[in-house]
This record gives sequence, structure tokens and C-alpha cells, in this order.
Amino acid sequence: MKTILTGIKPTGMAHLGNILGAVQPAIDLANKSVDTQSIFFIADYHALTSVRDPIAFKEDVYSIAATWIALGLDTKKSIFYKQSDVSEIFELQWILSCMTPKGDMNRAHSYKDKVQKNLDNKKDPDLGVNMGLFSYPILMAADILLYDTNLVPVGKDQKQHIEIARSIAQRINEFYGEGTLIEPQEVLQESGASYVVGLDGRKMSKSYDNAIGVWETEKRLKKLINKIKTDSSEPDTPKNPDDSFIMDLYKLFATPEQIAQEEALYREGIGWGYAKAHLFDVVNESLKAPREKYNELMQNKSALDEVLEDGAKRARVVASKTLSRVRNKMTGF
Amino acid sequence: MKTILTGIKPTGMAHLGNILGAVQPAIDLANKSVDTQSIFFIADYHALTSVRDPIAFKEDVYSIAATWIALGLDTKKSIFYKQSDVSEIFELQWILSCMTPKGDMNRAHSYKDKVQKNLDNKKDPDLGVNMGLFSYPILMAADILLYDTNLVPVGKDQKQHIEIARSIAQRINEFYGEGTLIEPQEVLQESGASYVVGLDGRKMSKSYDNAIGVWETEKRLKKLINKIKTDSSEPDTPKNPDDSFIMDLYKLFATPEQIAQEEALYREGIGWGYAKAHLFDVVNESLKAPREKYNELMQNKSALDEVLEDGAKRARVVASKTLSRVRNKMTGF
Repeated sequence: MKTILTGIKPTGMAHLGNILGAVQPAIDLANKSVDTQSIFFIADYHALTSVRDPIAFKEDVYSIAATWIALGLDTKKSIFYKQSDVSEIFELQWILSCMTPKGDMNRAHSYKDKVQKNLDNKKDPDLGVNMGLFSYPILMAADILLYDTNLVPVGKDQKQHIEIARSIAQRINEFYGEGTLIEPQEVLQESGASYVVGLDGRKMSKSYDNAIGVWETEKRLKKLINKIKTDSSEPDTPKNPDDSFIMDLYKLFATPEQIAQEEALYREGIGWGYAKAHLFDVVNESLKAPREKYNELMQNKSALDEVLEDGAKRARVVASKTLSRVRNKMTGF
Repeated sequence: MKTILTGIKPTGMAHLGNILGAVQPAIDLANKSVDTQSIFFIADYHALTSVRDPIAFKEDVYSIAATWIALGLDTKKSIFYKQSDVSEIFELQWILSCMTPKGDMNRAHSYKDKVQKNLDNKKDPDLGVNMGLFSYPILMAADILLYDTNLVPVGKDQKQHIEIARSIAQRINEFYGEGTLIEPQEVLQESGASYVVGLDGRKMSKSYDNAIGVWETEKRLKKLINKIKTDSSEPDTPKNPDDSFIMDLYKLFATPEQIAQEEALYREGIGWGYAKAHLFDVVNESLKAPREKYNELMQNKSALDEVLEDGAKRARVVASKTLSRVRNKMTGF
């Protein structure tokens, strides 16, 4: 039985790129798998390195929880919790800190990037760096090592974090004996949403301001889709379905039959207004049921609390075992 | 009601200087006080920044616990626990990390000293610095702030740590509202043992190798006292009781009557062997009962566990209240 762990940082409403590229595949894998224990956690205390608004903080956490549940995560099969509910993480983080050379943090990419930016602007190199940001890779190591995690799916930008977690585990195993901690491996993934285009044809991304939020109302979803940029070709001009990002998005939501039919329409000539209306129909159709579920959950936060508390309880059963083992090897207690 | 907090780092057997200069006065103050809650904790997870031997680690923790109890700490009145039993500390430490500029750690004296030493030796500035050492002032801030501590008795070398704890509390109060955390004050103390001389007449200190351990056997205590350096004056030569560190030590353990009698003997002329024998008698007399208690406790660690667990339970009642308050202000949860 392998353990796969995925951390989810709460950062406002997910968009279609997130969902199609990362969330849905992860959920499908976790729900179907027979020989792995999947653990998903909301990295809310990680968000504390930057989020200063408690109202937004809390809402974002619930939104992430509702999103994963609405999209079908089997929370009885997987373990799904929020980080701040598992205090063992922070105790392990301290223990790991004592076995982590400061040099390893000095060399972490995200920290070095921040320092370089400050130096480029002729500022104090540590300007705007808090100790949460600086020591974050150790928190992440604790997140991972606490569950004897074997595999961590990550994008290329997160690869170094898994290497740091692994090297901490190795160092502790050398000092205190093999098996004190399990050494995790990264599973490198294409940046999830790279094939989902946004309203302007570039990769869908919050930072490009071209994203379609998953849980927009029908009205707003229609409005957003109508904003997709098109050329000025006439409605009856034949269009190449392989060179249209309206079609690219359409394909992600439609059945093969719908796609074939729509491609034929493109080749005959279709007005962009109609193409967009068809796109709206398929997107809306596939989001309708989960959207209702999402809204229902966001109206009933105590149900979300219950799911997360149950997840935390199950997480802590595993966590406390690992922590006891590590504590005993290192302190005798 | 004020809260006073004292952390005790486990570092092997206490010596007479520790006891007379720091431990006994603290115990007396705590036992007698009517308007303060005294909290004492064994900073075992702090020791993890340097101790790598789990057997020594555990034994040192028990030794400290047994020492304070044998010397009369009222563990029902004070709260007495070991740091690693209160997981709230580590969660608060993470929260505080997110509100602590890295620059504050760069400027911490103990870190800067270490860096300077490395630079003097033409080494990597961070050589031998682990992240536990680097971020230790934040752990100490969590230790303090978690109990709404008002006062922290410290030596001059620890003053900056209280300033850091206070500035973190201030910053959080500015962001999240007054009263989120209580801002602690240091109570500066003479380095406890400065008036207790060691075997060679210098201040008693482990690092001078001139210390008398509190819990030595009678036999070894006698042997150590016999090692005290003396001049070669004849037994019947009159001696100045104000210029003898055998007498200095004698005074710390004897009654006023005994002191007057002994001073008279010095002025008449006393052999150093007799002076040492008299010193042994008073030291041994005052340590006899607590030594028995200490040995008893060290033979019965489950009794120590019980005391520490009870302390941790009471500590966590206070700790969880503070943590909930801070968590709610900062995350909404």
C-alpha cells in the first residue's frame, strides 16, 4: 500500500484550468485506486505566510473544500483535512528544523528568487521575507513525512521541495536509524492546466486575468464565454476547428458525438456567437450538478466542518504513530 | 494575577551554583507568591537543536524534573511540564513565524556570534547552524506568548529574546487588534550563580570544570570538597574567614550560629582539612534529604511522568485558550 499526498493551497475560486488539469484527474485517480491511500490536505497554514484577512482566509478554505467534494472526491476513501487541524505537523516541523542545515533554506529557489528581486531593486535582500516563507520547505517536509508518504505529485517548480524533504529524512535516518522516516519520491507532472486556454487564447491563469471560475453563476459564465476573443470573419465563412480555442475548450467538455457535429458546423461556417452559445451549453451542462452541490455546501458550512474534522481525525491516527516513532528515536520519550 | 514563566534547559546534573543562584530562589518565590501564577517548563525540544543522544536526552529531562521537585517545588501550585508535551507551542510557533521578519533572526545575537566565529575561521557563515538554532527565538516567543505571560525572569544574555517575543506580539496586535497577544516584559536577573565560587575560587561553572554537582554521593561530595585549592599555611596559623572561599561556600549552607563559631575557629587557626570537613558537613546536611528524594524520584520515573503529565494537562488548558483566540483572529477559524 503506497501513500500519495497532495497539498492544496487555498487561493480563491478555482478556474476551469485547475479543475481539468489537476483536480478532476487527482479525484478520479484517488477514487478508483485500489492499492494506494490518497491524502489530500488544504494547506491553510501555508497561506498564512501571505494572507492577512481572516474573512478571506476562512472563505477560501471552505471554497476549496466544497470544490473537491462537489467534484466528487470520495472523502471516506481518501483522507481529506485541513492542515491547521493536525497539530502533529507543527511539532514534527520543529523536530525536522533541528536536523535541517540553514544552508538548505538559503538555497531554496523561491527564497533565492525573492532575494534576487530585492537585490535587483537595490533593497535589503530579506525585505518582505517572513520566517514562515523562509522555513516553508520544512513545513512542507513535515506535511509529507508525517504520513510516511511514498509519492508526491508536483509540478517542476515544486521538485526542490520534495528533494529537501527527502534529504531531511535521509539525514535523520542516518543519525537515528533506517526507517525512522520514509523517504518520499516526487511524481513530476505537467503543470496541470497547460492545455486549457483562457479567454485570450493563452494558458488559463489567474495572473493573466483570462480565467473562467468554475463556480460562476450561469449568467456570469455566459458573459465570460462571450468575452472570448475571435477574429472578424463572417458567420458563413468556413472555420478551421483545429485553429479555434473556442473549439479547444468545447472539446474538453463535449461528448465525441457533440464534437464531431460541432466540427462539421465549423467547416460549413458558424457565427462566433453560436459557437460561444454551444460552448456555454456544454460547459454549463457539465458544471450544473457540481455547481449546485458546491453552492449547497457553501450554504452549509457545518457539513464541511464535519467532513474536514472527520478527515483530520483519521489523519491524526496516522500522524501520531509516525510522530511517536520519530520522537522516541530522537528523544527517548 | 500575573503570569511568570521560566524555561529550564536540560543540560545534565545541576551544580550548587545553579541551585543556590537560580533554582531555590525561584522555587521559594513560586511557592510563596499569592498573586502570580508561576509556570516552569523543561525546554527539552530546545535541547534538540544540539543533543543527538536520545538516552542522554531523556535522562537529562528526568534529572531536571527530579531536581526541581526534590528541592521543594510545589507542583500543584505552579504549573510544571516539559515542552514536548504541549503541542500547542509548535502550532503557535508556525503562526508567529508568518509574522516575524527574517531580518529579526539575522540580527539575533546568538546567531550573529556563530556567524562571526565562522567568518573568523574563514568558513561558510552558516556552518553548523541548523534551522532549529536559527529560528529558536520564535520557539521561545511561542513558549512565552502561549500563556499570556507577563513576566519572564532572564539573564542579560537572554534579554534580546524577550524583546523579540514582545515585538512579535506587538506586530500581531497591530494587524489583528489589541489583546490578540499579551506583550511580555523581562525581569533582568544577575546571572544566578555569580556569588557561588567553585573548587578553584572562580565562579562555579560547568565550563570551568570547577563545579560541585548537587546530587553527588556523599563519598564523591567529600572528595570534591577535598579538591578545593588552599594555601600552604600551617594548621595553627590564624586565617582570615573573609578571605577564604571554603568559608564563602560554608556561609551559603550554615546557620548564623555555625558561621560565627566557624569564623572564630578560623581566627584561632584551623587546619584546611578540618575546614573542608566542616564544609562537607553543612553541605551534606542540607543536601541529604533532597538527595534522598532526588534518588527516589530517579528510581521511579513513572512518578515523574505523572507529575509532568499533570502539569502538561494544566498548561494545555491555558495554551489552548490562547491558541484558539489567536487562530480565530488570524484565520477566522
